[in-house]
Amino acid sequence: MRGAVMFAPGDVRLAEREEPRLLERTDAIVRLSASCICGSDLWPYRGAESLSWPAPMGHEYVGIVEEVGDAVTTIRPGQFVVGSFFASDNTCEICRAGYQSSCIRRAPVGAEGAQAELLRVPLADGTLVATPDLPADDLVPSLLAASDVLGTGWFGAVAADVRPGNTVVVVGDGAVGLLAVLAADRLGAERIIIMSRHESRQRLAREYGATDIVEERGDDGVARIKDLTDGLGAHSVIEAVGTQESMMQAIRSTRPGGHVGYVGVAHDVRVPGDELFFSHVHLHGGPAPVRRFLPELIELIWNRQIDPGKVFDLELPLDEVAEGYEAMDHRRAIKVLLRP
Amino acid sequence: MRGAVMFAPGDVRLAEREEPRLLERTDAIVRLSASCICGSDLWPYRGAESLSWPAPMGHEYVGIVEEVGDAVTTIRPGQFVVGSFFASDNTCEICRAGYQSSCIRRAPVGAEGAQAELLRVPLADGTLVATPDLPADDLVPSLLAASDVLGTGWFGAVAADVRPGNTVVVVGDGAVGLLAVLAADRLGAERIIIMSRHESRQRLAREYGATDIVEERGDDGVARIKDLTDGLGAHSVIEAVGTQESMMQAIRSTRPGGHVGYVGVAHDVRVPGDELFFSHVHLHGGPAPVRRFLPELIELIWNRQIDPGKVFDLELPLDEVAEGYEAMDHRRAIKVLLRP
Repeated sequence: MRGAVMFAPGDVRLAEREEPRLLERTDAIVRLSASCICGSDLWPYRGAESLSWPAPMGHEYVGIVEEVGDAVTTIRPGQFVVGSFFASDNTCEICRAGYQSSCIRRAPVGAEGAQAELLRVPLADGTLVATPDLPADDLVPSLLAASDVLGTGWFGAVAADVRPGNTVVVVGDGAVGLLAVLAADRLGAERIIIMSRHESRQRLAREYGATDIVEERGDDGVARIKDLTDGLGAHSVIEAVGTQESMMQAIRSTRPGGHVGYVGVAHDVRVPGDELFFSHVHLHGGPAPVRRFLPELIELIWNRQIDPGKVFDLELPLDEVAEGYEAMDHRRAIKVLLRP
Repeated sequence: MRGAVMFAPGDVRLAEREEPRLLERTDAIVRLSASCICGSDLWPYRGAESLSWPAPMGHEYVGIVEEVGDAVTTIRPGQFVVGSFFASDNTCEICRAGYQSSCIRRAPVGAEGAQAELLRVPLADGTLVATPDLPADDLVPSLLAASDVLGTGWFGAVAADVRPGNTVVVVGDGAVGLLAVLAADRLGAERIIIMSRHESRQRLAREYGATDIVEERGDDGVARIKDLTDGLGAHSVIEAVGTQESMMQAIRSTRPGGHVGYVGVAHDVRVPGDELFFSHVHLHGGPAPVRRFLPELIELIWNRQIDPGKVFDLELPLDEVAEGYEAMDHRRAIKVLLRP
């Protein structure tokens, strides 16, 4: 089958790969309807993170179940399913507490590469959530967004304790940041400030519920947030980048007693203990337990109450995956959807 | 008046100091019934932190109000009061959210030194809490503990989200750690594991509700905690030391989705972002908003439901303050009470 492989930083190509087969009795094989490129795929693409080359790419997926192992009881061939980047049993104590991405049996789905025609998904009953029926074609991008960026933005908002009436800041205007705006809006935030310098992203942020835009970064950005919040800082700040600068910007934009929800995969971040101590903020985040939110998010999408699929502003056939990476790397696209 | 002054690391002596006077209309002057030496006073004593020498010492206090400014309306001369190390107005938005130690008008009470005969307390109405009556003498140590170490241990337990049925770990067996055990017990924890190597402290920890003792530290300590918690880590971990080692021990002893409450004043701590990200823990803490808890803690003490004063295992006249520092520095005493 065809699948995207990163051979080295900057070099992603479609390659002929072996078809995945059932390895465990709890596996499912999914024929992918759509996949996409993640902001986190750009870290190795830019040489900022090492993979074991050549690396099959992609960890966001929706599709139709083709085959299941004989221990799979709730997922059936023919169902349209949404999964996320970590397989989880959804029954262990950690899963039951809502942290499926730290499931004691978790397995990275991305290891086998979802930018492809077929994907093996471990722990299918725990990992996959079926839609009520086969979806209308225009719902597919939104369902695909639920697989990662929507679930991640949503977790960021929940981790930042967004509540009705809150003032929320979103650091980062990638797909996750934009969907964190959507999540904060759905969770009842009164004021949503996004830190963004890109006009097209600002527009989508406003569509999703942002009330204010801050273009400044670093100390200037923090000063602007303080100006907008009576000098106190925001109740909730969602960090959706993963750098030292963005993390400190998030902590410094939060009022004492407020919450930082961080979902940008941390790269070379060191949080200074003394500043953290006196900041009085709550810090929480990590790899989003997307599975926790999937049933609710699928329902909102199915009923057309939210439209997270708008973050896909470029759609390409899987064959043109290289062009997709380049477009995201140069920020010509917010997020690229790939059709196998 | 007489008051303790640190002239340099290792050199604390009683000195003749100017009597405090009302400076603001919201001040009170308190004649101190008791004061004490804090674990955090040992940082400069050991040369691990710089002060502007000579530095008046002490920030924990109880006593009888001698005089109040003309804008003070609820606190009256003759009342027995408990305060804490930051003065706060208790009315601003941050105070109302329960973060009085980050009050927008906060002032460090310790700057004028509570290891003395008299103390000026700013923002008296917001800062001081009066007991129902003059206390019996044997209640004074417990009320003094409420001023900092009990309030700080309690905040650690609340920040670590201790709930009925939880498994809790306490890192650190100083007075704050021991009183965090007491707090966790009162908050309903089922299992309370203290990391301690000192027999006398272990004994008091057991008296306060500890169910298990772990003597190992670092990776070995973490491994023991994992053994005791089905490999998952604790729900709640209270960090009451403030070093890199203790902070990492706390984070690594916590299960995914669990909570670290840190109240040890951070010294040269750098939290690695990638490890924090994948740990999935909640981090919260900082200088305890003791004022939030004072009314409740005073009531528990007044009704003799808790006895936090047991952490004072050495009582000295203020004149012998130098001996008090030495005893705490050499861990001959858990905590030293000083009588002016």
